[in-house]
Amino acid sequence: MTGITSHGENRLVLVSGRAHPELAAAVADELGIEVVPTTAYDFANGEIYVRFAESVRGADAFVLQSHTAPINEWIMEQLLMVDALKRASVKSITAVVPFYGYARQDKKHRGREPISARLMADLFKTAGADRIMSVDLHAAQTQGFFDGPVDHLWAMPILTDYVRTRVDVANAAVVSPDAGRIRVAEQWAAKLGGVPLAFVHKTRDINRPNQAVANRVVGEVADRDCVLVDDLIDTGGTIAEAVKVLTAAGARSVIVAATHGVLSDPAVSRLQESGAREVIITDTLPIPVEKRFAKLTVLSIAPLLGRAIREVFDDGSVTSLFDGV
Amino acid sequence: MTGITSHGENRLVLVSGRAHPELAAAVADELGIEVVPTTAYDFANGEIYVRFAESVRGADAFVLQSHTAPINEWIMEQLLMVDALKRASVKSITAVVPFYGYARQDKKHRGREPISARLMADLFKTAGADRIMSVDLHAAQTQGFFDGPVDHLWAMPILTDYVRTRVDVANAAVVSPDAGRIRVAEQWAAKLGGVPLAFVHKTRDINRPNQAVANRVVGEVADRDCVLVDDLIDTGGTIAEAVKVLTAAGARSVIVAATHGVLSDPAVSRLQESGAREVIITDTLPIPVEKRFAKLTVLSIAPLLGRAIREVFDDGSVTSLFDGV
Amino acid sequence: MTGITSHGENRLVLVSGRAHPELAAAVADELGIEVVPTTAYDFANGEIYVRFAESVRGADAFVLQSHTAPINEWIMEQLLMVDALKRASVKSITAVVPFYGYARQDKKHRGREPISARLMADLFKTAGADRIMSVDLHAAQTQGFFDGPVDHLWAMPILTDYVRTRVDVANAAVVSPDAGRIRVAEQWAAKLGGVPLAFVHKTRDINRPNQAVANRVVGEVADRDCVLVDDLIDTGGTIAEAVKVLTAAGARSVIVAATHGVLSDPAVSRLQESGAREVIITDTLPIPVEKRFAKLTVLSIAPLLGRAIREVFDDGSVTSLFDGV
Amino acid sequence: MTGITSHGENRLVLVSGRAHPELAAAVADELGIEVVPTTAYDFANGEIYVRFAESVRGADAFVLQSHTAPINEWIMEQLLMVDALKRASVKSITAVVPFYGYARQDKKHRGREPISARLMADLFKTAGADRIMSVDLHAAQTQGFFDGPVDHLWAMPILTDYVRTRVDVANAAVVSPDAGRIRVAEQWAAKLGGVPLAFVHKTRDINRPNQAVANRVVGEVADRDCVLVDDLIDTGGTIAEAVKVLTAAGARSVIVAATHGVLSDPAVSRLQESGAREVIITDTLPIPVEKRFAKLTVLSIAPLLGRAIREVFDDGSVTSLFDGV
Amino acid sequence: MTGITSHGENRLVLVSGRAHPELAAAVADELGIEVVPTTAYDFANGEIYVRFAESVRGADAFVLQSHTAPINEWIMEQLLMVDALKRASVKSITAVVPFYGYARQDKKHRGREPISARLMADLFKTAGADRIMSVDLHAAQTQGFFDGPVDHLWAMPILTDYVRTRVDVANAAVVSPDAGRIRVAEQWAAKLGGVPLAFVHKTRDINRPNQAVANRVVGEVADRDCVLVDDLIDTGGTIAEAVKVLTAAGARSVIVAATHGVLSDPAVSRLQESGAREVIITDTLPIPVEKRFAKLTVLSIAPLLGRAIREVFDDGSVTSLFDGV
Amino acid sequence: MTGITSHGENRLVLVSGRAHPELAAAVADELGIEVVPTTAYDFANGEIYVRFAESVRGADAFVLQSHTAPINEWIMEQLLMVDALKRASVKSITAVVPFYGYARQDKKHRGREPISARLMADLFKTAGADRIMSVDLHAAQTQGFFDGPVDHLWAMPILTDYVRTRVDVANAAVVSPDAGRIRVAEQWAAKLGGVPLAFVHKTRDINRPNQAVANRVVGEVADRDCVLVDDLIDTGGTIAEAVKVLTAAGARSVIVAATHGVLSDPAVSRLQESGAREVIITDTLPIPVEKRFAKLTVLSIAPLLGRAIREVFDDGSVTSLFDGV
Repeated sequence: MTGITSHGENRLVLVSGRAHPELAAAVADELGIEVVPTTAYDFANGEIYVRFAESVRGADAFVLQSHTAPINEWIMEQLLMVDALKRASVKSITAVVPFYGYARQDKKHRGREPISARLMADLFKTAGADRIMSVDLHAAQTQGFFDGPVDHLWAMPILTDYVRTRVDVANAAVVSPDAGRIRVAEQWAAKLGGVPLAFVHKTRDINRPNQAVANRVVGEVADRDCVLVDDLIDTGGTIAEAVKVLTAAGARSVIVAATHGVLSDPAVSRLQESGAREVIITDTLPIPVEKRFAKLTVLSIAPLLGRAIREVFDDGSVTSLFDGV
Repeated sequence: MTGITSHGENRLVLVSGRAHPELAAAVADELGIEVVPTTAYDFANGEIYVRFAESVRGADAFVLQSHTAPINEWIMEQLLMVDALKRASVKSITAVVPFYGYARQDKKHRGREPISARLMADLFKTAGADRIMSVDLHAAQTQGFFDGPVDHLWAMPILTDYVRTRVDVANAAVVSPDAGRIRVAEQWAAKLGGVPLAFVHKTRDINRPNQAVANRVVGEVADRDCVLVDDLIDTGGTIAEAVKVLTAAGARSVIVAATHGVLSDPAVSRLQESGAREVIITDTLPIPVEKRFAKLTVLSIAPLLGRAIREVFDDGSVTSLFDGV
Repeated sequence: MTGITSHGENRLVLVSGRAHPELAAAVADELGIEVVPTTAYDFANGEIYVRFAESVRGADAFVLQSHTAPINEWIMEQLLMVDALKRASVKSITAVVPFYGYARQDKKHRGREPISARLMADLFKTAGADRIMSVDLHAAQTQGFFDGPVDHLWAMPILTDYVRTRVDVANAAVVSPDAGRIRVAEQWAAKLGGVPLAFVHKTRDINRPNQAVANRVVGEVADRDCVLVDDLIDTGGTIAEAVKVLTAAGARSVIVAATHGVLSDPAVSRLQESGAREVIITDTLPIPVEKRFAKLTVLSIAPLLGRAIREVFDDGSVTSLFDGV
Repeated sequence: MTGITSHGENRLVLVSGRAHPELAAAVADELGIEVVPTTAYDFANGEIYVRFAESVRGADAFVLQSHTAPINEWIMEQLLMVDALKRASVKSITAVVPFYGYARQDKKHRGREPISARLMADLFKTAGADRIMSVDLHAAQTQGFFDGPVDHLWAMPILTDYVRTRVDVANAAVVSPDAGRIRVAEQWAAKLGGVPLAFVHKTRDINRPNQAVANRVVGEVADRDCVLVDDLIDTGGTIAEAVKVLTAAGARSVIVAATHGVLSDPAVSRLQESGAREVIITDTLPIPVEKRFAKLTVLSIAPLLGRAIREVFDDGSVTSLFDGV
Repeated sequence: MTGITSHGENRLVLVSGRAHPELAAAVADELGIEVVPTTAYDFANGEIYVRFAESVRGADAFVLQSHTAPINEWIMEQLLMVDALKRASVKSITAVVPFYGYARQDKKHRGREPISARLMADLFKTAGADRIMSVDLHAAQTQGFFDGPVDHLWAMPILTDYVRTRVDVANAAVVSPDAGRIRVAEQWAAKLGGVPLAFVHKTRDINRPNQAVANRVVGEVADRDCVLVDDLIDTGGTIAEAVKVLTAAGARSVIVAATHGVLSDPAVSRLQESGAREVIITDTLPIPVEKRFAKLTVLSIAPLLGRAIREVFDDGSVTSLFDGV
Repeated sequence: MTGITSHGENRLVLVSGRAHPELAAAVADELGIEVVPTTAYDFANGEIYVRFAESVRGADAFVLQSHTAPINEWIMEQLLMVDALKRASVKSITAVVPFYGYARQDKKHRGREPISARLMADLFKTAGADRIMSVDLHAAQTQGFFDGPVDHLWAMPILTDYVRTRVDVANAAVVSPDAGRIRVAEQWAAKLGGVPLAFVHKTRDINRPNQAVANRVVGEVADRDCVLVDDLIDTGGTIAEAVKVLTAAGARSVIVAATHGVLSDPAVSRLQESGAREVIITDTLPIPVEKRFAKLTVLSIAPLLGRAIREVFDDGSVTSLFDGV
């Protein structure tokens, strides 16, 4: 037959935006490679310029960006990087978004709103992304917003492994800060070996409907070490309030555990003043020095991302990384 | 200028599949029109044939189909009707699916599953639908699966208006059959004027983790008329169990209210035997005679659909129809 | 250069719906593999659930489904499987549809009909299929309905090889049951070495236009062993009538040969009573025991499908499998 | 409510390429309008330039082009016009192609061929066409190649009305020049009131398979005025041969009738020498003076196109224009 | 015929992002309407929330946003607004971007760069924009990046009308600040009635290639009032240098005129110190008080945008607004 | 794991249209392969037929066509070949268009024109091209018209290497024939080691605006060997005029160098009569014998194309081939 024949070869490259270079470096370390050297800066009027300094032709490219503030800037930078990769003839593009920006705007609460989480999925598709990798999406339905494979990773094992070293499971309780997140708490409770489950319920007092909202603890927490779990901590209001309610309900101590440390103001002061014994998050988002406080523990998400990227590249199974329990 | 000029005119037509002709007739009545005469039958090998008997060219077409069993047959028939409308040069196509089939498969619970609810949205888009109209989606995120407008209607006002005539609100409680549906119950409680809220919690006993699952009632229900609410009743297992638990907890009576009466076997016998005083649903799905029992009340969804269709056609606001509270 | 390099590897997997497990097993045997273990069942309301029990990441997946009754159920199941494969990160998806459902609805006979065969192609594309493999399409133009490669296989060699063992070609005639299928008959005649060709013509008697329809045989069939050929046998009406007309015209015997045995009621009784010496079909569709009768011969399509799948996987040429003559 | 409200208005404009200006003028006359003044010429290297000389913003635009030789030039010109209309903000674009170029390449006869008729449909879609209007497609399945409405007009009534004035129907026969076109002939026979039907069959002599191909007449044609019908006449070989065979079979006279007069060399000389009493075509393609001969009758397709365009613009029914019989 | 018929009505609404409310108000004034009341704010982590406070269903919506710093924030806000409009069932969406962000990144200067201007066009298409309206694109080719109509407006008449009141045309010269923008200068020269043309050429001294870059004036500028023209002023470096070179070359005075006043630091101080007699721009971008200096004149672009929006809504011709000369 | 595993293999094939077989053969020689044997011819009515004579399944296919006159014919042939490749299951398709037809129509100069260069990009995408490879696009923005990778090759090194052998660089000047192409001339000047730069400026005499257009040389050319550079020579008018102006300005000699020799009439006579010492082009377009004249030098583009194709196939870097300087 006519033509030239050669053996196929696959190449994995890791590309990173400017939002969270420490995480990119850590993921690269896990993979035993370097991040692709890249030029990225802002023009005087704020337009972003990006260029990769070496060839990525034919590669399976993973583009890591952390959707931290200024979030629109970093999303746009990642879209521009995806476009540049597409035009540079890579074989496939995976947008790695440890924290998926706009994930909470996943439905129309009222008329004439956008469905921002779907729009983000479409923007990445349009720019050229073939796949999305993310950690602990706010709602699992968000996977369905992207027209292609979504690797939905679970950080829970990282968090629970650490928590086991901090509390005596025999005397612990897992607590959800509101009714909407109770399923995550159920998974925690199971993962920790069937520890008791409780949650804080924000409601009008059902016997006095005309009075103000109150927070009640449902479940047994007295004299227990409570692990208060959520997917993210943004301004920290709900979490800090829950810590106080638990303490008032007789909890021996309260540890807070969440995957994404958004930590928008005034989260840090709220958490510090809440009475929590320890606050545990991962570094899916950068935690700058000024947001680090004594009781804050930041676990690395890099091993999970590195392992998932490698499995995807090798066409191995990543099921074990997201079938949590 | 060259050419012919004429005044624009809009025309609304209602087309219906074979799944639920009574509902189509009722909606047509609300609109004061006839359903477009249509030929639809199965060939010997099960392939469906459809044809509209009069011109629909230039019309705003609304295609109503109820996703009842045999559900795949009826979905395919609706897709074929949408295709026929597209090729017949209508101006716009709205797929009216009072109950959205496959809505519960809206995420990957584990690897290697489809996201069936997203696939349905894509199939309707591909066939030619410009818009989808549905009632009480299982998860509001499903709106984001369709690339275009989704009219998400709320049946709650229809149900609450009726329930007010059946219970004394001053002595009632709204109950969710599990933790996952508690937000709907909260909206009911508010809509009924701040009645107490409770729910049934399926869990291992938190003090005895090694023992079996138990159902507990959270909230005050003793001596109250309980309104047990859900979006749909499928095989009725969870609902019937909740009725029993509420009764055991001292409820004076239990009324069940849900939008979609899927009523798969053995729902009817379970509901009849559950001890519920009354079961209230709407006719988003056909309720055949053999499924109707003494304590079952079926409210008509046709006025809601008719009003929404008319508003969409007139470019009026349907906000009032889906911003529930 | 930055990154990880590895050698490429290809993996073929065969996935099957529930419509025709015997065929899937036979094709797997031909390939020397197992069908991917898969969970597939119906929920109580008829919604289908599917999940693959092992990783298919990176594979070239072939999804086999036979479009038999209940045909819409099986098409939907195949679409759901394609969606699940797409989201499970396979490399390519080939929908293997030995009999292409809705193939006969390939044009608008009148206004306001769908073009169902085109819609099916679009649905498979939307779900994620990259390629379609089918056997003996009703009209070759259907290939053009799919936006991508279509492997159009020919079953004729399988049928003609068998027929040669059943009739003396020197004394045979190939007959088409109506004018529309005469090109297939021409290919048969050539393949069998230039045997005489005839066909049954359904027409008003051209000399008596006011009278009813009559079937005439065009061509010499007297004292010949006739091979009556078609692409499919559905209810068997046309075929059975043709057998009778041929017999009346003096045929020594009539053998019926067709690729697809749809065999909708009352095909079996019609064929049995038609006077045909033998009816030969393939198993592109399942032939349940109750449809098997003494004179029915079912040839296996599995070797053809197995060979084609292997050639596609190896980037070999399948030309020989569809350039019939 | 905020904003400006105005009454809607529709505007029809007719745009034409350079291939067949006489037809465009005739269609405009039927509609009582002028063709939009347009600049169109070739640059020195053959690139085409087009520009409309007046605003078409908001109009329903019909772009007429006849796919005559040089056919690729004219198709490209029409695509450029569609693109220019799209960018000039028209409301809708209908590509009017009285003869659909490449319609005969509607399937892969063998491997590694294009499906050119599908490609043409896709090119028009990509350029911006919303709808296609054509006359007597070579295969009706071609409608399914376009992702949108196709107005498939039938010229038969124009041809049969004329033919009735030329032959005594009581003594006529309708003849197809080969087996593949016999369905069109059936429709003619019915339309003419049930006249006898016949066709010319190109085959090896079925009794002498080793000998050369022969053409036989099937059906009664002796002493009849035969109307030989086809969708198009290209080089005229098949038609001229059929005329001779019919004459040899005792036909009293032969009239040839076809919709599309492609008339590639040497069609004119073949037809003139064939012995046909008259050759009747329409002007879907331009018939230049040098191709016009004494026995050639060219009927105008303009009234049909004009009526269809008007109906489409008015959202009237064009069913009567394509449901031939 | 079945159905409801009503008269068509069109409604124009103007929606605005938060980047430049003064311009939106001025455009609304030109149209005699109010901007649609809209809620738009940032969440604590920087995610944007938008919602329109009244129905826009069925409207022709124009979404105005000025791509000023923080440019990525404002682009994302506009995309979210387009998405919200799409899901709110508007009839058409025009993204009005007086200054098109990223327009200067319209090609790959080197490998592995994005083509950002194309990406922006695709993002707006994906979000749901049907049309784009912009003023004085950096390169006219950018129109071709959007798959749909682009209204490319020209601000030159606004600028030249004003400039005529400031200089004696008989003694003026039009000057381009570099070779790349000379075509715009040619149009100015023609528009002003054939005044002399010159430009500043940045080059190595062609006789001394080893020495540094120098700026030379090409054309006669001595004793003339020079009008230095460009499409935009970003940091002002090139413009300020050109003013100095012209002054050194004997220009009597220098007026600077440009459409877009990006005015990134240190543009204001450079322009103030450059020696220019006056700097004239439009308000396509907001010019905050701290950037306004004595010699700066800001002309309103609102009348041009208002007129264009009205013409688009009325399907009138906007040709006169962009065929500059 | 289930399935068959094999090692990946890549295969490069080169396919060619009929426009410029010599170039295809030369590129194949560079690659050490044969062009894929292909059948391509015109039917009587001008429709093109193509078919590849051997399997291309799984290959990386490069489809070479030169967009020479009759340009629409050759573009359509290339589109048909791309479609045939897509349907023949190749792995990837690169359309190689050494000269990109319609590249000069890259924007709307006035309203109601197409953007033909964008349309061409979309047509190739629709037919199935994954990538485009071209040489010296008229405007670099054209890269952004294609939704995918574009390999934009630079012929300048080929031309400058030759020119160095023909002129003494120390005494040369690089000249642009008009202001619009001066950036290319700048790159030439740099590439040749910093030789002086000049250009011909077509303008009204700036001191006498009422008089006719004149061509002036800007820059020092007296007594120098001038190299007049452009991207293409079409009818040769501008180039020939520039040669004369340079000669009049005292140039010692003038060499013309351009990438694309379109050479439409009357280019050859104009160039011959212009006084140019030599005219140097490449063979991106075929140069038939009748267009070859004594002073014309045609350099081969085949080595550049061959090298680029090989690099693309090997996933090597082609940066060096298009980052000119």
